[in-house]
Amino acid sequence: MNAGRLITFEGMDGCGKSTQSRLLAESLESKGLDIVLTREPGGSPGAEEIRRLLVEGPPERWSAETEILLFTAARRDHMEKTIRPALDRGATVISDRFADSTRVYQGAARRELRALVDRFHDAVIGRDPDLTFIIDMDPSEALRRGLERDSGERRFEEMGQGFQDRVREGFRALARDNPERCHLIDGDRDTEAIAREISRIAGRNT
Amino acid sequence: MNAGRLITFEGMDGCGKSTQSRLLAESLESKGLDIVLTREPGGSPGAEEIRRLLVEGPPERWSAETEILLFTAARRDHMEKTIRPALDRGATVISDRFADSTRVYQGAARRELRALVDRFHDAVIGRDPDLTFIIDMDPSEALRRGLERDSGERRFEEMGQGFQDRVREGFRALARDNPERCHLIDGDRDTEAIAREISRIAGRNT
Repeated sequence: MNAGRLITFEGMDGCGKSTQSRLLAESLESKGLDIVLTREPGGSPGAEEIRRLLVEGPPERWSAETEILLFTAARRDHMEKTIRPALDRGATVISDRFADSTRVYQGAARRELRALVDRFHDAVIGRDPDLTFIIDMDPSEALRRGLERDSGERRFEEMGQGFQDRVREGFRALARDNPERCHLIDGDRDTEAIAREISRIAGRNT
Repeated sequence: MNAGRLITFEGMDGCGKSTQSRLLAESLESKGLDIVLTREPGGSPGAEEIRRLLVEGPPERWSAETEILLFTAARRDHMEKTIRPALDRGATVISDRFADSTRVYQGAARRELRALVDRFHDAVIGRDPDLTFIIDMDPSEALRRGLERDSGERRFEEMGQGFQDRVREGFRALARDNPERCHLIDGDRDTEAIAREISRIAGRNT
């Protein structure tokens, strides 16, 4: 039962999470592991539809409270349809963002929202990852990369430097508060060096 | 502040809620009141989009937990964008379905879900109606009318007689538990007789 492992990547947009998720998936797959690479918001057909409500339209479309409910609904569906079945068959699930993103982004927007995120998480998600990589880097560099890439999903990037600084501090605080599962990774290095460190840590924690 | 009144109509599909909501709106409007007639799920542009996720697609698309989160997200948006501003300017808001529907339908599906609905309601909605009309009628008659009308949104109607019986009992229990705000209306009468009773009660409670 639940022999599988849930590994998540967190950090601000532009920090290299998606690249590093993919590289770790390839590295573990090459060792013969059963890997499911996924992402949030989204990761199941229903959750991808909820994602569209979250990332399309004007940034002020939803209040923070409605947004937290939608993120939690998407996560519940992702958990039921994608993550839980994979873990149950013993696979390793690698998710580009998970509950920590909601905790940090909503908490950076308004501190008291963090408690609401945790309340909903406890009520309907319940599970935290076995291992979380938080890629930490200079917010102005991440912002530059995020804007350059411009996927059309620029909600948080547009909130400026002050918000980015609070997001960075939120992720660092999360790493300090959860030292057993969270690893803070220096993202201001070349992709290969970062991937090697992540792969070593993931191998050690098998 | 909040001089307005929130009046809701509840009951199973096919019970005549929508007709009676409209008739009460017309009756109060003719007396010069500022009336906002709305409905759930939906009632604001964002909530209508969430509604589409809820009523379109196969019935088993979402788990009960995800559904509760989506209903609550839609209700929060409806409250923020439509209901609260109307109440704040002193209007009377008449809503075809509100929180009681989620309580009863989810509770009829699985009893323990009722606690989850209440938890989310307390966390992000908080307000109950000032006056609720629960239209009670023979479930097989409501089912017949619901199927006949067939709006393409047949999620609950398709669940059969046993489910309809539990829904009816759920609404009746709600009326018993909240006698100050809930009025159980006998829906097995002609439309005009029902409308007159509702109008009389709404007038008395101004």
